[in-house]
Amino acid sequence: MMTELGVVRRKVKRAERAAVEALGRCGVATVHEAMGRLGLMKPYMRPIYPGALVSGTAVTVLLHPGDNWMMHVAAEQIEPGDIVVAAITAECTDGYFGDLLGTSFMARGAKGLVIDAGVRDVKTLTEMGFPVWSKCISAKGTVKATLGSVNVSVVCAGAAVNPGDAIVADDDGVVVVPAEWAIKTAEAAKAREANEGDKRAKLAAGVLGLDMYKMREPLEKAGLKYVD
Amino acid sequence: MMTELGVVRRKVKRAERAAVEALGRCGVATVHEAMGRLGLMKPYMRPIYPGALVSGTAVTVLLHPGDNWMMHVAAEQIEPGDIVVAAITAECTDGYFGDLLGTSFMARGAKGLVIDAGVRDVKTLTEMGFPVWSKCISAKGTVKATLGSVNVSVVCAGAAVNPGDAIVADDDGVVVVPAEWAIKTAEAAKAREANEGDKRAKLAAGVLGLDMYKMREPLEKAGLKYVD
Amino acid sequence: MMTELGVVRRKVKRAERAAVEALGRCGVATVHEAMGRLGLMKPYMRPIYPGALVSGTAVTVLLHPGDNWMMHVAAEQIEPGDIVVAAITAECTDGYFGDLLGTSFMARGAKGLVIDAGVRDVKTLTEMGFPVWSKCISAKGTVKATLGSVNVSVVCAGAAVNPGDAIVADDDGVVVVPAEWAIKTAEAAKAREANEGDKRAKLAAGVLGLDMYKMREPLEKAGLKYVD
Amino acid sequence: MMTELGVVRRKVKRAERAAVEALGRCGVATVHEAMGRLGLMKPYMRPIYPGALVSGTAVTVLLHPGDNWMMHVAAEQIEPGDIVVAAITAECTDGYFGDLLGTSFMARGAKGLVIDAGVRDVKTLTEMGFPVWSKCISAKGTVKATLGSVNVSVVCAGAAVNPGDAIVADDDGVVVVPAEWAIKTAEAAKAREANEGDKRAKLAAGVLGLDMYKMREPLEKAGLKYVD
Amino acid sequence: MMTELGVVRRKVKRAERAAVEALGRCGVATVHEAMGRLGLMKPYMRPIYPGALVSGTAVTVLLHPGDNWMMHVAAEQIEPGDIVVAAITAECTDGYFGDLLGTSFMARGAKGLVIDAGVRDVKTLTEMGFPVWSKCISAKGTVKATLGSVNVSVVCAGAAVNPGDAIVADDDGVVVVPAEWAIKTAEAAKAREANEGDKRAKLAAGVLGLDMYKMREPLEKAGLKYVD
Amino acid sequence: MMTELGVVRRKVKRAERAAVEALGRCGVATVHEAMGRLGLMKPYMRPIYPGALVSGTAVTVLLHPGDNWMMHVAAEQIEPGDIVVAAITAECTDGYFGDLLGTSFMARGAKGLVIDAGVRDVKTLTEMGFPVWSKCISAKGTVKATLGSVNVSVVCAGAAVNPGDAIVADDDGVVVVPAEWAIKTAEAAKAREANEGDKRAKLAAGVLGLDMYKMREPLEKAGLKYVD
Repeated sequence: MMTELGVVRRKVKRAERAAVEALGRCGVATVHEAMGRLGLMKPYMRPIYPGALVSGTAVTVLLHPGDNWMMHVAAEQIEPGDIVVAAITAECTDGYFGDLLGTSFMARGAKGLVIDAGVRDVKTLTEMGFPVWSKCISAKGTVKATLGSVNVSVVCAGAAVNPGDAIVADDDGVVVVPAEWAIKTAEAAKAREANEGDKRAKLAAGVLGLDMYKMREPLEKAGLKYVD
Repeated sequence: MMTELGVVRRKVKRAERAAVEALGRCGVATVHEAMGRLGLMKPYMRPIYPGALVSGTAVTVLLHPGDNWMMHVAAEQIEPGDIVVAAITAECTDGYFGDLLGTSFMARGAKGLVIDAGVRDVKTLTEMGFPVWSKCISAKGTVKATLGSVNVSVVCAGAAVNPGDAIVADDDGVVVVPAEWAIKTAEAAKAREANEGDKRAKLAAGVLGLDMYKMREPLEKAGLKYVD
Repeated sequence: MMTELGVVRRKVKRAERAAVEALGRCGVATVHEAMGRLGLMKPYMRPIYPGALVSGTAVTVLLHPGDNWMMHVAAEQIEPGDIVVAAITAECTDGYFGDLLGTSFMARGAKGLVIDAGVRDVKTLTEMGFPVWSKCISAKGTVKATLGSVNVSVVCAGAAVNPGDAIVADDDGVVVVPAEWAIKTAEAAKAREANEGDKRAKLAAGVLGLDMYKMREPLEKAGLKYVD
Repeated sequence: MMTELGVVRRKVKRAERAAVEALGRCGVATVHEAMGRLGLMKPYMRPIYPGALVSGTAVTVLLHPGDNWMMHVAAEQIEPGDIVVAAITAECTDGYFGDLLGTSFMARGAKGLVIDAGVRDVKTLTEMGFPVWSKCISAKGTVKATLGSVNVSVVCAGAAVNPGDAIVADDDGVVVVPAEWAIKTAEAAKAREANEGDKRAKLAAGVLGLDMYKMREPLEKAGLKYVD
Repeated sequence: MMTELGVVRRKVKRAERAAVEALGRCGVATVHEAMGRLGLMKPYMRPIYPGALVSGTAVTVLLHPGDNWMMHVAAEQIEPGDIVVAAITAECTDGYFGDLLGTSFMARGAKGLVIDAGVRDVKTLTEMGFPVWSKCISAKGTVKATLGSVNVSVVCAGAAVNPGDAIVADDDGVVVVPAEWAIKTAEAAKAREANEGDKRAKLAAGVLGLDMYKMREPLEKAGLKYVD
Repeated sequence: MMTELGVVRRKVKRAERAAVEALGRCGVATVHEAMGRLGLMKPYMRPIYPGALVSGTAVTVLLHPGDNWMMHVAAEQIEPGDIVVAAITAECTDGYFGDLLGTSFMARGAKGLVIDAGVRDVKTLTEMGFPVWSKCISAKGTVKATLGSVNVSVVCAGAAVNPGDAIVADDDGVVVVPAEWAIKTAEAAKAREANEGDKRAKLAAGVLGLDMYKMREPLEKAGLKYVD
């Protein structure tokens, strides 16, 4: 799928719903590991309030610096369970999104917004419980003058996102799972999680990772020296 | 008014009080729009705790890197309802302000501090309920050796500020309204707000911005194409 | 002590415990002043949750970009009351540390982690009450392939740290007190604190710093002019 | 094409050579306009010496922070006329590439390197006339321990790149043209250029863009006011 | 003078020409000192090629993110000897200016451009000898859709600039001298320069600044201790 | 050696001269590898002109933000062959050093300056051939009001430096070699260099690093897959 301007794609093949929900239960760090350590957005993407954890399918928007016209076009393409992923054609910190658009997105069933730019009205958005992951917070308003696109391939905060991809976002950041990998990644993530309870119990009891992961021998081979 | 060093201006024409209070009730994003999208400080200015919303009239301070001497000079010029706006003659992240100065500023009636540098003792300042918007948080102390100025024109975080200007600050950032524009800006801001309740209700009911703002025709004219 | 790779020092002379605890009661800003305004880490080091205040003795770790192998080696060197200080040989934002390592560190008696890189699982670490000061938050996982060191001299976020040094960290940042200075710095810090209660009361009563610190004469000598 | 780890794709459909050469004659700014203002890498990507202008087809490499193992794997996949495009799975400033690899890449026929990280030996590379566009310059060496990939889809400095895409780089930055768009983009770019000579002559003669582009009427309609 | 949108001021009182030329002969560092260490733009403002030194009178432009429409409006207001100073209403790295606008500005008699955003076609601009000081270099093009202003007060790279102010720019950065201060600042700058030749000769002969500036006594009073 | 304020150490044990010169002949990248990939300053340290390559012994200076008083104190401690390494107690971009100090330092025999802040008069310094590696270029002047130190341990741009340490700086950055490691590091660096000529010839002849470094087997073991 190409990145184009002036296009709205209405039919999007979304990642399988149960897999998307399963990914959400695992959280970003686990999903990113299950992906083979790929798909993570840059760490400058931060939630506007702590504690949110969502997963959903991507409706992508491509916007110009200082122009949020296509946000309104994107609203119509939202289906319940979607997360809007907004990319800008160049670096921008403007506040593209506030409580009015937030109200509209919630009414359409969106579970959150991920935007590689700024957001405003964050106090109201927090009260509404509409989570946003953004590069910054800025009251700077935007114009509505130039066409972008909806549901094309975009790069958001360093990650390639196609419409319909699974998005997981929490306090650790935002990860993108390609739609066709959602099911196997969900399985891999669940397997990792199942494994963690036992490890956590051992570590809490004072067992060292050195022993649990059998690291002493490879460390010695690599030449690690203990001195007093 | 010029930017000079070594000067304290005692008589300042402050923005009209009722207008300043009205601006405060509207919040930064609305006031910034009512100003015609001008007057906003850079988005790196962040509050030390969430949820604060203040408006007041500017007492300006111009300081040197690593030197907070003039903060004490500024304290004497504070009148109840003022917000101190501190600019530095060059980039600096030092902690110019802590709980002792905060106690003094509160006793003088200041409603907050906006500083294009660092602040410290943020836990105590938060407990005191004295809001600060700053570039960063830093325990780094400063010296008291070189003259700056109080109540001269300054540039703080990218915005020009004159003593007496109206300042509004909340979770979205900090906006400056020139004193002579305070009344008309307050009116414009209130008009915007009155307008928003109805819009919010419609959007919550599922009406799209595309229809509410009558964007479909201009989008089509601009050449937007819908594909499946 | 030199900075070397591939070495674990087991015997570390730790700063005197009572002094370390006394430093913790004073907080970072006061300790940094008592040190003569030295020893502070860069202000980009931020706690993962507000309100934490810890002091402890440094176990240092030197890691490579994208490689957290030595974190497991460091765990074994932790004694109750230690704070792990992690430096990277080059700039990196990866998430070197999560809830499993946090569980292990807590079980060993660590009071916190200071890392010049990223951390993940911050929601769980917050629930566990294990405080971390870091450059950023990132879900990005790391490999375990290359030797670093434990308990060698490191530079972490701009501050030189030797194993055994006293570390104090709170909402204002992180300060390092060389082990041999811990006792005298704790005394100087306590003396500063004793002094502050009286000052605070005066300032709260409206006394100006200008008068309390007798600044009017030096300001006049420096040439400060008051105009109307 | 997916982004995967541990894979080297040997057969790559490269953009049509004549089109790639034509793009190179137009330069980055013109090509980026001809693309509809898409495909540009972030402006932090800078050449190690001024005046270089290259175009070529992308051999992509995906590397881990601090690990340049796959650069050697990439060397074998270079065909004359290629430009290597190196992406890192997380932010890193290490010097992945120096004069030895530069010698190898030149011997294979590479026309340059684009890397979202650091480069070293820049004096020698400059003397060799091997151009590199990078995020920074750093002598920091890397290890060879973990698998990445060659010729998979990557995101480099904010731009999505597929193996075989046309890359144009000069003093203005780096632009990516998808292989299947290379011919039409080259035509559009040449058409823009043909158009510019005439414009330049008029502007040099003192004709204003206001008149040449017929902007006076739309500016007036938009409400622009001239005052004295 | 206020910062407004949608306004072009045609009559500007420019700083006295001989003073502007004299300031240019002194260079940025000397002028900034002569101003009392005020008026300097942020150090991120860099020339596109080394060795340029210009002084002129400011034509100011206020632009929106990603929109260079007003550059064409500004061109008409340029008089020989002017320097265009371009500010953006929010942070932006787009390339607002290239060789075509450069040709037009040169034809109008402009001596250079200072822009708090990006510039492109830097190779051609360098060949033309048209100097630009900018935040970055970027090929990213802009739209022409929204009104800004020409010859209103602006803040550019942290410095307040009024139309007609004297601007001096060289390899050390950019300094703004208010029009009404140009003559006295030029005199102060020349006096500083006259003074420097003698100092330089003494220092070259091995005389220490400690002695030349008589610093030994104040250093001793301040408590400086020499140890072996 | 401790980091203290208000102290000048006159007697410094400098790294062995022949070793320092040998290190200079190898360049930063090779020396840093020979150190085991330690000792490098952050990559934001850049030379004011390309092509400089110096090695020398460190005279360290510790300065306060916006205050260059101790630079004059440092001048007296310079011996021929020294490089001054300047650290600031907090982040600062001011221009601490210009052509007058440069003249003085050259007269004393200094080979260059490394400063974790700004420098000015760069055009004159370039003409003088006095190389400076700095965080930025800024005309911003400084005051002379507060004591720092000369020849104490400092952290400069992320690297620990003791007076007398060997410093090597070129276009790739700045590396610090502890005085007591200078001889063995020089030997290791020379050994690396001797080794490189042969490698370069092979690579230039088209031999792949894959074969020269025998990487094919370990890559296969690690699981690398070639696909068409």
